[in-house]
Amino acid sequence: MTEPVVLMATMVAKPGQEDLVEKTLTAALPKVHAEPGCLRYALHRKTGTTGEFVMIEKWASQEALGAHMKGAAMREVGAALARALAGAPDMVFLDAISAGDPDAGAV
Amino acid sequence: MTEPVVLMATMVAKPGQEDLVEKTLTAALPKVHAEPGCLRYALHRKTGTTGEFVMIEKWASQEALGAHMKGAAMREVGAALARALAGAPDMVFLDAISAGDPDAGAV
Repeated sequence: MTEPVVLMATMVAKPGQEDLVEKTLTAALPKVHAEPGCLRYALHRKTGTTGEFVMIEKWASQEALGAHMKGAAMREVGAALARALAGAPDMVFLDAISAGDPDAGAV
Repeated sequence: MTEPVVLMATMVAKPGQEDLVEKTLTAALPKVHAEPGCLRYALHRKTGTTGEFVMIEKWASQEALGAHMKGAAMREVGAALARALAGAPDMVFLDAISAGDPDAGAV
């Protein structure tokens, strides 16, 4: 059985690049949502910051995530943000632990 | 209008306390899911670790989160984990940025 893949990607804008990063990531959302196997791709800004972003992602499979990483939307984002981020995105993969309500209990 | 509140709480177990922490947090899930205004309360272990946990939470309002923090389930968790965590939970609040599909685009 193919398990969904959950991860958080944290991206920090260089000073002065906050708006570019936010607009670029926001513009990518509809394109990524339309990609095969995209179950969740939810953009957030850390409260109290202007340039620290967290994408919470859930993909139907490792293959779907792999296709996303190599896809057109990510190529565009990568090109637009190449010089706008303070460093490489920090990607943290998560193993879901299920109990209780299956909807409230999973992203 | 009351905005939902999204946050991530990261908890790190002391060495040797990983199982206690995981069991305690897992046991709390059904109780927390039943609390008023709990929209998401999803437990994860960072992949490749045994004792680093991330709870992704969404509450209907600041008031619902406040009631949760003071509620019976959290009192039990707090008592059980008082000496099992390496430090206080790290709570990061997140402002959702919406675009695209409203379901895939939000936790």
